[in-house]
Amino acid sequence: MGRTADYSKQTCGIAATLEVVGDPWTLLILRDAFWGVRRFEQWQERLGVARNVLAARLKSLVAHGVLETRAYSERPPRNEYLLTDKGQALRPVLLTMADWGNKQVYGDQAPALFIHDHCDHAFTPRLTCDHCGEGLIPGDLRRTQVNAGAPTVGEALARSDKG
Amino acid sequence: MGRTADYSKQTCGIAATLEVVGDPWTLLILRDAFWGVRRFEQWQERLGVARNVLAARLKSLVAHGVLETRAYSERPPRNEYLLTDKGQALRPVLLTMADWGNKQVYGDQAPALFIHDHCDHAFTPRLTCDHCGEGLIPGDLRRTQVNAGAPTVGEALARSDKG
Repeated sequence: MGRTADYSKQTCGIAATLEVVGDPWTLLILRDAFWGVRRFEQWQERLGVARNVLAARLKSLVAHGVLETRAYSERPPRNEYLLTDKGQALRPVLLTMADWGNKQVYGDQAPALFIHDHCDHAFTPRLTCDHCGEGLIPGDLRRTQVNAGAPTVGEALARSDKG
Repeated sequence: MGRTADYSKQTCGIAATLEVVGDPWTLLILRDAFWGVRRFEQWQERLGVARNVLAARLKSLVAHGVLETRAYSERPPRNEYLLTDKGQALRPVLLTMADWGNKQVYGDQAPALFIHDHCDHAFTPRLTCDHCGEGLIPGDLRRTQVNAGAPTVGEALARSDKG
């Protein structure tokens, strides 16, 4: 159940994200965290993942600053795991994944629906440009190399995980 | 390099997406496809991934209808791989991943920038509600179980891959 791909030598924002959350089970652990799961036993029961794998994933997410621990019991000593701001920032990744799976795999049989509190309607994510507010159409993004000396994923992680 | 997690018994749109694109290297293969890579040798050179792994990933993406093949040579017989509509629909997943990695891992050293043709400014994705147009704030989505009898990921895939 260990890592099966090493992206640390890539120089790419997507690879950087996968290096942090691309391990098996990690994104489902985070999905549950967004719905309020905080404790080891809850994840273990919901996911049915091996305990050593779950422990390794939680440890890695804490090391990367995506989750943080907080003691909820002194005797015996027990920690729960909370999403940091860095972890909360993954919500768009999970919501776009949910949308794709619901539409492209489940079709009209999506297992769950989100309601947007602001408008009280079913929530469908729409990705827009933060500058002009427009949605995307195919072929409307150009990639510009802005930082030819950018570090590799491994170097960037070594720096950000310390910070 | 095989699968290291089986999400087929989950009932979840996120798990459905990961079951299709969660294998190691798959999302980087698709990243390159969005930038015009179509041929085996191009991917192999860019990613440095083992040839048998790359072949297995491409085969799986074709089986799931994310890529489709087109012959570009008859002698020797050679196929290239193009994104289908189902594959194009993954763009928001990749863009939100790039945004997270650029901001949370690379900080101010993002390796590449996207320019949005519509407004000619640097592109930052913003996830909005397709109904009311508002952006998201923490805690503003409620999950509603709309389909208690929804199939598992494995069942849904068996159905959609045939379609």
